[in-house]
Amino acid sequence: MDRRGFNRRVLLSGAAVATGAASLSPVASADAVRADGSTRTAPAGGEVRHMKLYAEKLADGQMGYGLEKGKASIPGPLIELNEGDTLHVELENTMDVAASLHVHGLDYEISSDGTRLNDSAVAPGETRTYTWRTHVPGRREDGTWRGGSAGYWHYHDHVVGTDHGTGGIRKGLYGPVVVRRQGDVLPDTTLTIVFNDMLINNKPARSGPDFEVTLGDRVEIVMITHGETFHTFHLHGHRWADNRTGTLTGPEDPSQIVDTKIVGPANSFGFQVIAGEGVGAGAWMYHCHVQSHADRGMAGLFLVKGTDGTVPGYEPHAH
Amino acid sequence: MDRRGFNRRVLLSGAAVATGAASLSPVASADAVRADGSTRTAPAGGEVRHMKLYAEKLADGQMGYGLEKGKASIPGPLIELNEGDTLHVELENTMDVAASLHVHGLDYEISSDGTRLNDSAVAPGETRTYTWRTHVPGRREDGTWRGGSAGYWHYHDHVVGTDHGTGGIRKGLYGPVVVRRQGDVLPDTTLTIVFNDMLINNKPARSGPDFEVTLGDRVEIVMITHGETFHTFHLHGHRWADNRTGTLTGPEDPSQIVDTKIVGPANSFGFQVIAGEGVGAGAWMYHCHVQSHADRGMAGLFLVKGTDGTVPGYEPHAH
Amino acid sequence: MDRRGFNRRVLLSGAAVATGAASLSPVASADAVRADGSTRTAPAGGEVRHMKLYAEKLADGQMGYGLEKGKASIPGPLIELNEGDTLHVELENTMDVAASLHVHGLDYEISSDGTRLNDSAVAPGETRTYTWRTHVPGRREDGTWRGGSAGYWHYHDHVVGTDHGTGGIRKGLYGPVVVRRQGDVLPDTTLTIVFNDMLINNKPARSGPDFEVTLGDRVEIVMITHGETFHTFHLHGHRWADNRTGTLTGPEDPSQIVDTKIVGPANSFGFQVIAGEGVGAGAWMYHCHVQSHADRGMAGLFLVKGTDGTVPGYEPHAH
Repeated sequence: MDRRGFNRRVLLSGAAVATGAASLSPVASADAVRADGSTRTAPAGGEVRHMKLYAEKLADGQMGYGLEKGKASIPGPLIELNEGDTLHVELENTMDVAASLHVHGLDYEISSDGTRLNDSAVAPGETRTYTWRTHVPGRREDGTWRGGSAGYWHYHDHVVGTDHGTGGIRKGLYGPVVVRRQGDVLPDTTLTIVFNDMLINNKPARSGPDFEVTLGDRVEIVMITHGETFHTFHLHGHRWADNRTGTLTGPEDPSQIVDTKIVGPANSFGFQVIAGEGVGAGAWMYHCHVQSHADRGMAGLFLVKGTDGTVPGYEPHAH
Repeated sequence: MDRRGFNRRVLLSGAAVATGAASLSPVASADAVRADGSTRTAPAGGEVRHMKLYAEKLADGQMGYGLEKGKASIPGPLIELNEGDTLHVELENTMDVAASLHVHGLDYEISSDGTRLNDSAVAPGETRTYTWRTHVPGRREDGTWRGGSAGYWHYHDHVVGTDHGTGGIRKGLYGPVVVRRQGDVLPDTTLTIVFNDMLINNKPARSGPDFEVTLGDRVEIVMITHGETFHTFHLHGHRWADNRTGTLTGPEDPSQIVDTKIVGPANSFGFQVIAGEGVGAGAWMYHCHVQSHADRGMAGLFLVKGTDGTVPGYEPHAH
Repeated sequence: MDRRGFNRRVLLSGAAVATGAASLSPVASADAVRADGSTRTAPAGGEVRHMKLYAEKLADGQMGYGLEKGKASIPGPLIELNEGDTLHVELENTMDVAASLHVHGLDYEISSDGTRLNDSAVAPGETRTYTWRTHVPGRREDGTWRGGSAGYWHYHDHVVGTDHGTGGIRKGLYGPVVVRRQGDVLPDTTLTIVFNDMLINNKPARSGPDFEVTLGDRVEIVMITHGETFHTFHLHGHRWADNRTGTLTGPEDPSQIVDTKIVGPANSFGFQVIAGEGVGAGAWMYHCHVQSHADRGMAGLFLVKGTDGTVPGYEPHAH
């Protein structure tokens, strides 16, 4: 029995993203809990996958990456991989300026750097394939331990406006990448929150975005920062561990539990919460805790609906 | 034998805070070392406790929380809980503007959010009870590990001036919360240091606060940041682990040892040091390491007295 | 067989630093891999060592620490210790203003604080010996665990310009300190990168520094921040663990793997990477990811040469 009754990933991520999301996610179903009550976890990786992205100008002058022509979104599509996977991303640049794709955290040869320095941008109207690899952790021949690729990462343009992509990032050319380790717990839904200077996901101040989930959902939040400015990301009523997954590995994990994290440009992290765990349904704010940033509208709502489908005390038009 | 000879908690926290501190602390004695030389540790929680706080205007135009009428302090009273405890805080607002209580890290229902959005502020002259819960770590039914509430947290106003409490925080409506896990080592004394924009604990620049302790004391520092500005908190001659408690759990704990930590608004962390361990008595500075912040007076002294009661080389009126 | 064919430490650190570096490093050879393919590791400490540093004005008006008169560098010499070592540093101040030596992370008595407050600066033309101690981790008598001194630390002036050394730091009076734990893996080479406001290692914008290494080298990067400004340090194509050593201790280490780290004044951290591991040779950028900082030239190159001695696609005069 699906306790949520619809595909939350579609509802929350927006149609443009969700349309093609299945092709980027290694797991088709969105329900994180099996019939026996246990969580679903990431499988072993090792697949070679392909996807196509379009870099596009949006109607309002912003720019975005999309899975189909005319359907770009800000942030761009969520890309989920399992450690060991290889992804070939074909980027078609439909704009009138050069653009590129630069990824954080993943393995790529210098030809996939996405920079002018390394001659890996895409001219207007052209196409280029970037290859991103991931690896499992393990011992090197010299006996030292090599970390795996698992993490909450992101991709962005590196050439629009300046050689560091300042113009492209400002206008919306960025998106999330999640690399999972075999056994990592899968969420019901993944939300992406990008602090891009004083905007969240390039939306006008005081327009959220707000996210609707249901009490008990396992919600994953990918938090990315871009631009010029430093922030402190705060979520009301929910906390996470300041480590790789945002969840303690067990009683021995010494990581600090936090509900506020300092972030600056190109930082990324992620975590999972059980919506409303120990606190119940409600309109839980998330916001930058720099006071003037919050006051100027860097805030949105994490709307946790009760089992009756309503958010206690919340009137959508009142806030 | 009490090697310190007086109640340091009273000496250091100021009379207003100390007067009622016993009612907020689960452990009455302030001596962290038992007769056999072992440390005292936090007991299991599970108690239901009550306290009353007053939000008040201070004579100098600032605002503070206090345990008694006319005795508000900045920072507000230290609230210590053990994981599993529930605390009902009755807030009486003696001011002529609405105020509230918003807590970080603890569990509370949306009615205790302390925000206008969730209709949980306190009008002038009114009283409201906020309920904060804490929980021990443990396994969820789905097999995943849930972190506990233990941590160095804080409370603050969320409605004075703006809907994010910018005016209340600026004027001093904030305080520390420590939640301990059973077995956490108890300190001899707890000091609270709040970087609130360019002030420390809302004191005028170049006026500290300074803290006196004795060589060998187990001193706990709760460090909170508020306002607009980012800082790097530095303490001379002492270090801590960048993890939950500030102390390594043992030889396997991979956490970095630091003496400088980057912080922004609403960040909080804490740690314990043995005063003067390996370095001896002295006038040890703590300060923001942003050079202009230090130069403008964001500095105080951690005065570690030797066994003769003096601080070597330190003349109080000279610095 | 030395796969690198020359002493990389000399090549990379610049002649002024390298000349005397051997006297500061407990291990004479620079090759991190033994004949049997295993890594070389740090020995037990416990030695008492002596060195002399000169605080000097440079020809261009900047200031630096050096191991010989007339050979000061920015950053100052790399100081490497093993936990348990004691270092007596004799500082001769050849300048016409008072200067000092203040170290982070190490144990020193208040007389070695390097501050005016503690009367430990060095007048022009004078000499003073600072004593820095380090300790291994271990259990205290009370049963709690005391962390060791191992870490990526730094030293700097604390009196030039202001009582916090703002003028000295701005002009270049800073340098790296690495304290190793017995068993820590030794690198082939150590690079120091200091973000000092908008400059890297006090070099003019757009002039790097660039660093040449060879594919497969175990390269250690010590990253220090100074001044007024906050940054995010990013390295292309390489990652590290956000823990003490930058390397995971093994499969149980929960630390996040990152390629971008938020830093502010006096923060320091370090890590080791295998140059080009999983990504190959190339001109890999490192830069501050605050967009305007990168655009204004806070960037350099981590040049990973292939086994043929060339950097694929890189033309030195083109970037």
